Amino acid sequence: MKKNLIKDGAEAKGLRIIPLGGLEQIGMNITAFEYEDSIVVVDCGISFPEDDMLGIDLVIPDVDYLKKNIEKVKGFVITHGHEDHIGALPYVLRDINVPVYATRLTNAIIESKLKEFDMLKTTKRKTIKYGQSINLGCFRIEFIRTNHSIQDACALAIYSPAGIVVHTGDFKVDFTPVFGDTIDLQRLGEIGKKGVLALMCDSTNVLRSGFTMSEKTVGKTFDQIFAENTKHRIIVATFASNVDRVQQIINSAEKYGRKVVIEGRSMINIVSIAIELGYITVKDGTLIDIERVKSYKDEQITLITTGSQGEDMAALSRIAASLHKKISIKPGDTIILSSSPIPGNEKSVSRIINELTMKGAKVIFQDTHVSGHASQEDIKLIYSLVRPKYAIPVHGEYRHLARHAELAQEMGIPKENTFVLTSGDVLEISEEKAAVVDHVTSRGIYVDGLGVGDVGNIVLRDRQVLSENGLIIVVLTMEKASGQVIAGPDIISRGFVYVRESGDLMDDSKAVCWDALDKCSAAGVTDWNKIKNVIRDDLGDYIWKTTKRNPMILPIIMEV
Amino acid sequence: MKKNLIKDGAEAKGLRIIPLGGLEQIGMNITAFEYEDSIVVVDCGISFPEDDMLGIDLVIPDVDYLKKNIEKVKGFVITHGHEDHIGALPYVLRDINVPVYATRLTNAIIESKLKEFDMLKTTKRKTIKYGQSINLGCFRIEFIRTNHSIQDACALAIYSPAGIVVHTGDFKVDFTPVFGDTIDLQRLGEIGKKGVLALMCDSTNVLRSGFTMSEKTVGKTFDQIFAENTKHRIIVATFASNVDRVQQIINSAEKYGRKVVIEGRSMINIVSIAIELGYITVKDGTLIDIERVKSYKDEQITLITTGSQGEDMAALSRIAASLHKKISIKPGDTIILSSSPIPGNEKSVSRIINELTMKGAKVIFQDTHVSGHASQEDIKLIYSLVRPKYAIPVHGEYRHLARHAELAQEMGIPKENTFVLTSGDVLEISEEKAAVVDHVTSRGIYVDGLGVGDVGNIVLRDRQVLSENGLIIVVLTMEKASGQVIAGPDIISRGFVYVRESGDLMDDSKAVCWDALDKCSAAGVTDWNKIKNVIRDDLGDYIWKTTKRNPMILPIIMEV
Repeated sequence: MKKNLIKDGAEAKGLRIIPLGGLEQIGMNITAFEYEDSIVVVDCGISFPEDDMLGIDLVIPDVDYLKKNIEKVKGFVITHGHEDHIGALPYVLRDINVPVYATRLTNAIIESKLKEFDMLKTTKRKTIKYGQSINLGCFRIEFIRTNHSIQDACALAIYSPAGIVVHTGDFKVDFTPVFGDTIDLQRLGEIGKKGVLALMCDSTNVLRSGFTMSEKTVGKTFDQIFAENTKHRIIVATFASNVDRVQQIINSAEKYGRKVVIEGRSMINIVSIAIELGYITVKDGTLIDIERVKSYKDEQITLITTGSQGEDMAALSRIAASLHKKISIKPGDTIILSSSPIPGNEKSVSRIINELTMKGAKVIFQDTHVSGHASQEDIKLIYSLVRPKYAIPVHGEYRHLARHAELAQEMGIPKENTFVLTSGDVLEISEEKAAVVDHVTSRGIYVDGLGVGDVGNIVLRDRQVLSENGLIIVVLTMEKASGQVIAGPDIISRGFVYVRESGDLMDDSKAVCWDALDKCSAAGVTDWNKIKNVIRDDLGDYIWKTTKRNPMILPIIMEV
Repeated sequence: MKKNLIKDGAEAKGLRIIPLGGLEQIGMNITAFEYEDSIVVVDCGISFPEDDMLGIDLVIPDVDYLKKNIEKVKGFVITHGHEDHIGALPYVLRDINVPVYATRLTNAIIESKLKEFDMLKTTKRKTIKYGQSINLGCFRIEFIRTNHSIQDACALAIYSPAGIVVHTGDFKVDFTPVFGDTIDLQRLGEIGKKGVLALMCDSTNVLRSGFTMSEKTVGKTFDQIFAENTKHRIIVATFASNVDRVQQIINSAEKYGRKVVIEGRSMINIVSIAIELGYITVKDGTLIDIERVKSYKDEQITLITTGSQGEDMAALSRIAASLHKKISIKPGDTIILSSSPIPGNEKSVSRIINELTMKGAKVIFQDTHVSGHASQEDIKLIYSLVRPKYAIPVHGEYRHLARHAELAQEMGIPKENTFVLTSGDVLEISEEKAAVVDHVTSRGIYVDGLGVGDVGNIVLRDRQVLSENGLIIVVLTMEKASGQVIAGPDIISRGFVYVRESGDLMDDSKAVCWDALDKCSAAGVTDWNKIKNVIRDDLGDYIWKTTKRNPMILPIIMEV
């Protein structure tokens, strides 16, 4: 009995940190912090599908662990308003309906998202200011100002009975931010001085040496481009959520006497929120509706739009492909792509630049973007201020986390005190020790259209086979009593070869199916599944030999 | 009659330049030069499929124009041995069986390719030396030494009755090449002095400022990495065809007392050719068979392999995924990726780095590669030497060609004398004038397995739909006489949703099909195609409403 008590006591002393969507679902951020009867969850993001997740719209985290411990969960604490940190809230809140805490702009973006899902009334939300703390169970969480590619981003100091954890969120160090103040380095130093158990720090740009440039440097480039291109329209594509970037484009437009049109659903949505809350300042009369573009000369117009990543459905792609109802490219249009391609989007971005160039536009994409994430020296600065006992790199692919762990070691953290966690790992830490003590289920759940979790690996494997070689259907009708084939076998293919080019192939395939049927009949095989297998194997062999392709072969037997 | 004669005469005066695989099949190089009764073709490359060409292995050029003018075609002149310049030869030579002219290494690589296709005996080939000229019809072609990421690359001076065209091929300016001499700048200057009609110059790196670094700088990095990593295996992945790179890896290995293992089919193939012909020098005993790796300590081994682009089937991918029979990653292995990701491969490269890092390997990819293509200042150097009347940028996406045309203007070529051609354009040039006078058919032909050209846009569109949402098959058997449904409708889906998760959906779908059949019956519709359309539309609507997905719907009606 006593032994048990001690054991329980010993276990209870550690703070448990559990990334629920991490490495395997790159870019999806959701981390549970558990101490005795309290769980707080930091962020609740989605990730976008990998190349092999055919047809999948987005991936949300599996929060099975939270569901099982629902009575412990005190709330979601959100670091900033990017999709990979808030996007899964509407899905996750359905099961885990606890309050959401965030800064003002973040909260406004969450509000607009919940409105879409008709979940506004059922969700408790609270706006927190920089410097403010909230108590959630046995945790106290302090919101600390940072800089990032969206305003109102924050780091969190998570005070637990086991010690303080500092979570940076996604951040950069910007000494000359466009809006608001520099990251609160003083407070990070002050907390560091108290003694920090663990630092969970952004790894996105850990492979980049030096410091990340200030957002303001992009403003200077814009000014220069606006100064040099005074005779045509200027179209700027950027991330909708980069409110400071949009502010700087508006500044340049106003300086050079241009009107501004905002285009693209998410751009209009976020810019409206930002203007309403005072995060973007714009002079009366600068913004005009897209319908009024015709009333102005080209040199009086600036269009700010989504689509800088070459996304198929975004406004810029539609404009480039001449599919946009209101805007079409004219020779001389100056188009600024104000973003770097996110890995995987390089070819889409190239394609859109080609399309725009062919239509006579001038496309500018150099020096028109700075990152929102800390580089090596910025990260080292944070380590110098916080001086944690343990380092737990967050936000990046495995190669980033692993490099970050090395960097932490360069900053004096012993190797055994650095932890590269994968999704579902349960890391238990205290002043005395730290170790991964368990692993909980934490797969990504695929969202396809309205379906959540109904597309899994078998379906994806089928889509893969279909996408590469198409399918061949063999359909026949059998008389139940006699086992005689009374119709078919007919052969239908899709995504395989042009039918008119493949006359012989189809006739020969039919012959192969007849041979298979005869073989079954001669061997007395009457089980349909066996007959189907023989057809599938024989036809598959024949098709491979003839074409070196592996279409899906789907025999269907009907019974009358 | 006289008028006609003059017209014919006027037409005949121009040299016709016809890119047959260019912009729309990015990376595929094949250009016809036509003057009166002579055509010579420069290069004969393949391109690799774009993201939306599902299941396609490679794309070859449509040489319909050459077929139609077969009696004029005098030969293929090849600039260097990369796939995008020689890969389509085995396909194209089947129809256009004319001699192939190339330098020694290029010719050896072509030979090995033709051997694969069993076409060695039927193809006439000739090896040409730098500085040598060949006469082909009314053309004389001079081979000029250049530098590139493969040895024996050359530029061509094409002497025609209309004037001289200089075609650079793919090139860089390397003042300290690993093997052989620097690009023959003197000869380019000499020809320039004679007066050059047109320069067709490599555009790949036209967006990069400055000069491209020498291949030798990579050798220094290798030496440094070998010096710093003396306790573990070193595995270097690079392009098989980069013979100089392989030479430098061997040099470092020999310097640090390591044996060298060559792995990967194309690496073994090209390295064997290069050693045999003396393009790679290796000490006796340095190379060992992969079977003998076990006999040596880790620190005595260097493995040179394919797969630096994260290609699925290449050796490094199989090693990273623990699918390689002979080599598995050990913690501490030092892996050098000696290449930059080709656009579109960024995610595959990231994935392989993640996999290797997770297995405890140290992956190095910075400063381990230099480009084989000329940057802005190198290109300007060529313009300064050649000083052409017309500039025809080649080798790049539209955005590169367009930027190159601007750069040519900066170098003093009048705007109206620069031509950005797309595939199939017929450019006619002479001292007097230049203009695109015609456009010939020049689509890409898809190769899928053994099939050449039997997969087109309809098949690809089907694969796209199948890959995104799968398919639903509705199958039923009807009695011919009565029009009664005597079996089915049965519903089968693939790549759509988990069947066990979708019980209701499938039952409801069947009900929708019955309703559609009843509707047809009530309206007296007996035409099968109409019935199929009604089923397709009604079921499609129902599925979209319920799931927001658009699977392919395939109704099949059998008749008994």
